[in-house]
Amino acid sequence: MPKISARAAQAPASPIRRLVPLADEAKRRGKKVYHLNIGQPDIPTPEPFLRGIREAPVQVIAYSPFQGLREAREAMRDYYAEWGLELKTEEIIITQGGSEGVLFALNVTCDPGDQILVPEPFYPNYNGFARLAEVEIVPITTYREEGFHLPPKQEIERLITPRTRAILFSNPGNPTGAVYTEAELEMLAELALEHDLFLIADEVYREFVYEGRYISILSFPEIEDRAIMVDSISKRLSACGARIGAFVSRSPEILTGANRCAMARLSPPTMEQYGLIAFMADPRHREILEEMVDEYRRRREVLCEELRKIPGVVFREPEGAFYVILGLPVDDAEEFVKFMLTDFPGQETVMLAPGEGFYKTPGLGRDEARIAYVLNCDDLVRACELLKEGLELYQKAQEKVRG
Amino acid sequence: MPKISARAAQAPASPIRRLVPLADEAKRRGKKVYHLNIGQPDIPTPEPFLRGIREAPVQVIAYSPFQGLREAREAMRDYYAEWGLELKTEEIIITQGGSEGVLFALNVTCDPGDQILVPEPFYPNYNGFARLAEVEIVPITTYREEGFHLPPKQEIERLITPRTRAILFSNPGNPTGAVYTEAELEMLAELALEHDLFLIADEVYREFVYEGRYISILSFPEIEDRAIMVDSISKRLSACGARIGAFVSRSPEILTGANRCAMARLSPPTMEQYGLIAFMADPRHREILEEMVDEYRRRREVLCEELRKIPGVVFREPEGAFYVILGLPVDDAEEFVKFMLTDFPGQETVMLAPGEGFYKTPGLGRDEARIAYVLNCDDLVRACELLKEGLELYQKAQEKVRG
Repeated sequence: MPKISARAAQAPASPIRRLVPLADEAKRRGKKVYHLNIGQPDIPTPEPFLRGIREAPVQVIAYSPFQGLREAREAMRDYYAEWGLELKTEEIIITQGGSEGVLFALNVTCDPGDQILVPEPFYPNYNGFARLAEVEIVPITTYREEGFHLPPKQEIERLITPRTRAILFSNPGNPTGAVYTEAELEMLAELALEHDLFLIADEVYREFVYEGRYISILSFPEIEDRAIMVDSISKRLSACGARIGAFVSRSPEILTGANRCAMARLSPPTMEQYGLIAFMADPRHREILEEMVDEYRRRREVLCEELRKIPGVVFREPEGAFYVILGLPVDDAEEFVKFMLTDFPGQETVMLAPGEGFYKTPGLGRDEARIAYVLNCDDLVRACELLKEGLELYQKAQEKVRG
Repeated sequence: MPKISARAAQAPASPIRRLVPLADEAKRRGKKVYHLNIGQPDIPTPEPFLRGIREAPVQVIAYSPFQGLREAREAMRDYYAEWGLELKTEEIIITQGGSEGVLFALNVTCDPGDQILVPEPFYPNYNGFARLAEVEIVPITTYREEGFHLPPKQEIERLITPRTRAILFSNPGNPTGAVYTEAELEMLAELALEHDLFLIADEVYREFVYEGRYISILSFPEIEDRAIMVDSISKRLSACGARIGAFVSRSPEILTGANRCAMARLSPPTMEQYGLIAFMADPRHREILEEMVDEYRRRREVLCEELRKIPGVVFREPEGAFYVILGLPVDDAEEFVKFMLTDFPGQETVMLAPGEGFYKTPGLGRDEARIAYVLNCDDLVRACELLKEGLELYQKAQEKVRG
């Protein structure tokens, strides 16, 4: 038989994929698994959004324009205006989730063989998009001890080669919880100007800021010819399965390229765009968003308080998003997560995402794990108890092995 | 500013994109435009499908599994069984429309710089996917006079190079209306076996067969290690904006590669999968599909009858899908379409898709246009009258210019 392509044959470095079957198996054995490993919010999708889909004024679910329905783009424009970003409707392309926005951004900025810089740890799905677009990710390592903030400019400059085309980052950060300061964003803008790079900011967690202040990449006029914002309603509207995001730029050249990507796939889903339109038309929409963020703020407080009770667990309080990276008192976090799914006694357990999958540099993150605090406060408390017990048992078991 | 990538900077050879603004302008001037240029069916989306979305049992619109909801994959499996194709659920991946299925197929079979053979005229969006995947399309020219059936095997063999990885074709054909015979499919299977190629069959029009018989690429056991079927509900359920399709293969290697593509973009839209599940659960679903095809059969009859009344227009009756390619008595069909949108007098006009955009070989299709018969019979009759009048006026105007 003919061989599949090298790009499709290359297995993604995703430990979580190896662990999911173990979690499924645990559940088959009747175990309750607290899933702290995936950023799938549990909060109900807001009623106006659901209503917008259910009452969509369509007899034929037709293609929407490839850039999205005008009203959906206007709804996004109005949303950004609430954050002080004045955008034109033409500067907004509705995408199939933030995923497609990232893929468009890589396709528009890079040809096969080009490189992008990405602060690590980073969202592992960037690897998948980069593989498809045949783009090489060069990591900018950041550290837990520094709250995953950026290193000095010259350290980033050292990574730039003639093939570097862009810096891609998420802000607020998944999985880091870091919210970049104005000084950090200014440094990125300077780097982009001095080295002729694009900046691609994944800003899907903008609503989720608990310390510091969200600053969009689009608020720096001097780089508007090279700035791309990728957005999604998935997290803020608890609607990951709606597949509605946005690709936003003020550069006509970038928009031309992105429109060509959008044309190729014809249309984002039509019904969900009516959900977005209805949500933004609802006078309570800002209130709904704020209530949701308040809930995450409470979760963050509770989670951090509980984590502090666990000996050997180290972390910095996340400034934004709904993730926290933990340093664990183990050599290999993946082995520990496996232990929790297969050997941990009792009727309940907890699943974390091993840290290694968030790093490009081999060996980094082996003693780390990411928690997504997408469970209610009571469940978070219980999950932390299980984590504490699990670590104690695991350490004892390890000591025995070592003899 | 940094330059956008070569792949995004390359403008698609899509005359229709140049013409859409002229159609919009005509409509602003109050003109009614009969759109025969786009395959957007006018038939209402079946009620069970819409109901499935509206009554989807979700509080949180969560990610579906990346391969799609199990029940949605089972619904597709049951649908294929009605066509005599026995498939396992794991052999079916739900995609974001047929578009994504084609993109997955190119990514799985080709690395950048590889070639695929595609019978021309072909669906122009293949160009967009190929550009993004950095794959070169090498056309197999087919002819209107032969009903766009395939040339002899040795003519296709002449086009195969060491970089050829696959043959991609749509069957029943858009824009050709050709339904490949068993002998043609056997020839493709032989080519694939003898030259170690993949076969990618875009079978989204399977329901729409008026002459001949639909034969799936998956019905040839000897090539199941290299056959990919791309499917979509867009056309058969008048739900182009639902973005639900399928990537189907019996090859574990191909499925592994496609699953990696699917993982990268996380999830197809969740709500519409409930539409599909509800549609297939409805005992009337087969009847609904057949009524729909009967309507297209009537349209095809009416359209062909009306087209025969137009002097100088030549075509073969399409065997399937809902398109027909016309030879027009003009030098440049794009100019004629422009004329119909800008200079044709009266309150109504008609828009066709110029033929050139469906060919890769330069110069071919200049005197051709594609009609999508997605209007009701009365509208088709009126559209043909306008086309007849338009051709007369245009020919007169051309004669004047020539003096």
